[in-house]
Amino acid sequence: MKLASLRYLYIDELQDLYSAETQLTEALPQMAVAARNPDLKKAFRDHLDQTYGHIQRLETIFEQLEITPVGEVCEAMQGLIAESQEMVDDYGDPDVRDVALIACAQRVEHYEIAAYGATRTFAKHLGYDEHVKLLQDTLNEEGEADKLLTTIAEGGWFTSGLNQEAAHK
Amino acid sequence: MKLASLRYLYIDELQDLYSAETQLTEALPQMAVAARNPDLKKAFRDHLDQTYGHIQRLETIFEQLEITPVGEVCEAMQGLIAESQEMVDDYGDPDVRDVALIACAQRVEHYEIAAYGATRTFAKHLGYDEHVKLLQDTLNEEGEADKLLTTIAEGGWFTSGLNQEAAHK
Repeated sequence: MKLASLRYLYIDELQDLYSAETQLTEALPQMAVAARNPDLKKAFRDHLDQTYGHIQRLETIFEQLEITPVGEVCEAMQGLIAESQEMVDDYGDPDVRDVALIACAQRVEHYEIAAYGATRTFAKHLGYDEHVKLLQDTLNEEGEADKLLTTIAEGGWFTSGLNQEAAHK
Repeated sequence: MKLASLRYLYIDELQDLYSAETQLTEALPQMAVAARNPDLKKAFRDHLDQTYGHIQRLETIFEQLEITPVGEVCEAMQGLIAESQEMVDDYGDPDVRDVALIACAQRVEHYEIAAYGATRTFAKHLGYDEHVKLLQDTLNEEGEADKLLTTIAEGGWFTSGLNQEAAHK
């Protein structure tokens, strides 16, 4: 009964996020290895460190709620990571792979932005002021990660020496 | 070889979006039935009409590229819809279900915003000016749909007469 009350739904969302972040800690190292652009490699590694921080924040919230964060699997993140994995495994142009990895990672960021945004709003409505702060801190970091990926895309492959022939081959 | 060139990746992204939008046409009617708030019901129904328009735009692009949009299944959207379906099927408080449906739908919108954003950028780099316009039109509508859901959430359940006891029960 996830919908028995807003509190139940809030806990369900937290568990979904915990599963999503945990899955991400397994995917990001592979994305870092697959990336060619050094800035992109660094962005994935840095975001891995941040992701461990996001998990710690969620664990703080679970401790306060006296809840064990288990049993929920975020199916959306499973799908998002499966799509990233296809790009990691695909042979092809390494620069095109970087573009594909950025596109996958931005989908992940947007998922998390939507999910943390909703969860923070629930926390606010439920009066969990300390949780609101923790969730907002993570939300801000996800937003910054998304912007950094855009900066890398704009500053890298799309404006580099790649000619139209290579793009269209 | 999705990564052979940016053109291949672009086509892969278009097919992914086509699968995502097609899946959405099956999910939105169920979400509209499950919603209690009349504004939310209407938003889901209106977005279903828009989604058929998004599919038509993609079909126009496929025709111009002389490509058949088959064979790709968007796994991320499968996961997103599975999460929405759980909320549709869950018994509980109908107002809490509305909140949950909004949270699910906003994840869907954010996925599409990220995906259309990347795909439009690829079209721009490849010189497909007409595609850029079509993809941007859909991107704008996805953004508006996301904002409308926020407005419904803010104007509805969260600011209505729901008392703290009901939220916490």
